[in-house]
Amino acid sequence: MNIAMIIYLLGRVMQVVGAMMTAPFIVSLIYGERSGLYFLICGVLTVTAGTLLTIKKPAKSAFYAKEGFVMTALSWVLLSALGALPLYFSGEIPSYTDALFECISGFTTTGASIVPAVEDLSKSVNFWRCFIQLIGGMGVLVFLLALLPVTGAQDLYIMKAESPGPDVGKLMPRVRQTAFYLYIIYFALTAAMVIALLIAGMPFYDSLCAAFATTSTGGFGIKNASLGAYDARIQYVVSVFLFFAGINYNFYFYIWMKRVKEAINIEEVKAYTGIFAAAVFFISMSLMIRGNYDAEPAFRYAFFQVGSIMTTAGFSTFDFDTWPALAREILIFLMLIGGCAGSTCGGVKISRVILYLKMLGREIMGLCHPKSIKTIRMDGKRVEDDVLRSSLVFLAAYAIIFAVSILVISFDDYDFTTNFTAVASALGNIGPGFSLVGPSRNFAHFSVLSKCVLMFDMLAGRLEIFPMLVILTPATWKRK
Amino acid sequence: MNIAMIIYLLGRVMQVVGAMMTAPFIVSLIYGERSGLYFLICGVLTVTAGTLLTIKKPAKSAFYAKEGFVMTALSWVLLSALGALPLYFSGEIPSYTDALFECISGFTTTGASIVPAVEDLSKSVNFWRCFIQLIGGMGVLVFLLALLPVTGAQDLYIMKAESPGPDVGKLMPRVRQTAFYLYIIYFALTAAMVIALLIAGMPFYDSLCAAFATTSTGGFGIKNASLGAYDARIQYVVSVFLFFAGINYNFYFYIWMKRVKEAINIEEVKAYTGIFAAAVFFISMSLMIRGNYDAEPAFRYAFFQVGSIMTTAGFSTFDFDTWPALAREILIFLMLIGGCAGSTCGGVKISRVILYLKMLGREIMGLCHPKSIKTIRMDGKRVEDDVLRSSLVFLAAYAIIFAVSILVISFDDYDFTTNFTAVASALGNIGPGFSLVGPSRNFAHFSVLSKCVLMFDMLAGRLEIFPMLVILTPATWKRK
Repeated sequence: MNIAMIIYLLGRVMQVVGAMMTAPFIVSLIYGERSGLYFLICGVLTVTAGTLLTIKKPAKSAFYAKEGFVMTALSWVLLSALGALPLYFSGEIPSYTDALFECISGFTTTGASIVPAVEDLSKSVNFWRCFIQLIGGMGVLVFLLALLPVTGAQDLYIMKAESPGPDVGKLMPRVRQTAFYLYIIYFALTAAMVIALLIAGMPFYDSLCAAFATTSTGGFGIKNASLGAYDARIQYVVSVFLFFAGINYNFYFYIWMKRVKEAINIEEVKAYTGIFAAAVFFISMSLMIRGNYDAEPAFRYAFFQVGSIMTTAGFSTFDFDTWPALAREILIFLMLIGGCAGSTCGGVKISRVILYLKMLGREIMGLCHPKSIKTIRMDGKRVEDDVLRSSLVFLAAYAIIFAVSILVISFDDYDFTTNFTAVASALGNIGPGFSLVGPSRNFAHFSVLSKCVLMFDMLAGRLEIFPMLVILTPATWKRK
Repeated sequence: MNIAMIIYLLGRVMQVVGAMMTAPFIVSLIYGERSGLYFLICGVLTVTAGTLLTIKKPAKSAFYAKEGFVMTALSWVLLSALGALPLYFSGEIPSYTDALFECISGFTTTGASIVPAVEDLSKSVNFWRCFIQLIGGMGVLVFLLALLPVTGAQDLYIMKAESPGPDVGKLMPRVRQTAFYLYIIYFALTAAMVIALLIAGMPFYDSLCAAFATTSTGGFGIKNASLGAYDARIQYVVSVFLFFAGINYNFYFYIWMKRVKEAINIEEVKAYTGIFAAAVFFISMSLMIRGNYDAEPAFRYAFFQVGSIMTTAGFSTFDFDTWPALAREILIFLMLIGGCAGSTCGGVKISRVILYLKMLGREIMGLCHPKSIKTIRMDGKRVEDDVLRSSLVFLAAYAIIFAVSILVISFDDYDFTTNFTAVASALGNIGPGFSLVGPSRNFAHFSVLSKCVLMFDMLAGRLEIFPMLVILTPATWKRK
């Protein structure tokens, strides 16, 4: 393994993280907060350390899939560990475990919080919480690829390891170009949302934070009542942008390239829209019939919450834990499947679910007609066998990690709904769950052991499991 | 599709079901119960109808995989529908939906009941409830194969469709011989258990019922307190035989053939024993530390309940819903994985879990070293690619049916734990779940819609999903 190259790239990651700390520092200057100082100190130290690691570019540039996975997993652990420092040193989150949890939750765009009342935090800390979601949403390494001149074989492997979905579509022939386009779309969506929120009457600082938390599908709030603190108009704006955030970015890319027909024929986007609409419909009906809500709020709550949960943002606006069973169970179902691949969403992803259904259909046909050989197609293109196999193994890995995580956190002696939805929420990068991790609660009450499990789950969920398992496999670290 | 042959074989199934009704009739004679009359009438009518369908054996004997699946699925629906008639006509279960639920629950060895107080039922009805588990445990079609002279291509396809596990091991070169040996082992285990229970002091009638419910891993009780109505010695006997029932029958076959080394080296049996022991240990500790139980009852309860849940029998002896979270969650975990393939257990099966772990390991190695090609072995033999693929698709199908079932039954507006464990219990052929379907409750309170979903799940779980999906696929019924 090319350790020198990995250390070099980690140095680059540190430079990026350190530089990013300027943002909350500026916020602290505007609002005259002392906590900004910690961001400045941590930022300078991180950039310095990163620069020391990148003084000399390693001569041997050999970089394969293994290095890509190790690099990606270690970067995410490292950037969370560093990003948690200012939260801890400022004293606003007094325990480092909690600060780390909050930071992993932010970078992985989970949005599960250990902070009981976010309004007690300073503006700069809240800005940092929201800003790390923006960086984590599209991927910090993809960001690196889009900006820094580190071209070579590593690009593809890093892109593969960090990007969500069963198959990383190459929008452009070169990885760097693809990364660049993805970030342009991402920032454009975020900027459009900020403008829409300002028009809807939200203050500028709040708009920035809300937009970061939405397009990244992170879901951290800066008010105790999350987006429940704002009026219906703002909630509608957020709902619409949540829906946008869950769409495969290939869609926007095609639109941009004026290939509209290809855009509207993406199977995953069609399925996403269909499931989204069906979920909003059934939850609205459930709220009106069983929950005695009026039509407008029922629709608004349903639209907002489906967007929030399906895109795995997880804003906790309404206490959906008090909703009728059908509405609750639809939300749990959406937690598991998540949004589109190639978006900032977590979960299993719609495209995988489509592949599973197609494979199931093929299997049944194959059982009836053992000699029939049917290729599986997606958007008209043949899906390779190793993508199919890998998608299925992903599901098995997801299920195994899910089950083991529940077993370990059950040492805390909470009820099954809490344990199940806490793990679903962490693995799916959502945020809230039900019962003791419901929208009106937080994750502070878990033991350190459980928090560690959930932190692992958040990282595993964000990186689609394999990179985290690669760094835990002893064989990875053996010298040949 | 060879419909004539399917109807002919369904006629044979009807003959078997009708003949089986003699057993509860004899019981009714012994105890002087009027309800036996209904078994006699239904039995005679069923045998007559079956005989009419089998007067002439179809000339065209073409019988392929598709026919095997259709035949198997239809048989199970038919035998449950017929088996429910005496329960309904005797008036002891006043609703036919409920009688059908109880009967499907019995045949599929689920053991989920809609009867609030089983002691109110007559001896013959209770005997029938236990007896159908015995028939369903090893498979009614396998029974047919073992007894009737219907040799030909259909044997293998029926065996494949009805037998549990990712790959049907051929113990003997001919399918009929294999079926015969399996039934011998099965009856020997049942007989040994009856003797052990008699020695432990259980009445003869109770011993028969308990043995039927144990070796079939059905789990119906004939007392309101299930096996909690008997003393500790009897509970230990049942626990030991539950453990035996969960073992892959290849083990017993090898022992019988004096191939002891092969027997003790079956990977699945080793894993089963390990998981069983670990679960007993952790639950005992959990009960002692968190639940304030003494060592002996803690061990006895843990041993019994792990055996009961892991083998998917599901006797509801102790109200394990009141146990500490760790103990409860271990039981839910065991509900999902179940016992060995090639036993009478339900669930995903240990051998599949082993395959998933091996495939996950291979996937991770493959990601690090893209050129490495590793074959997956089980008990030293290479596992074919289509078995691997089919096992993975099975998991996807299991997950999809699981999720959809939960969504549909949530119309009843129960809590998540109830819905989740009710479906887990039905799909895994276990019996009780947690919360409103906990060991001290039953399934009577569900709506007809939910009962239909759960009946489908029980059949899908018993037949390992694919046969039930085959008969629901429109393409199956299209004429070429």
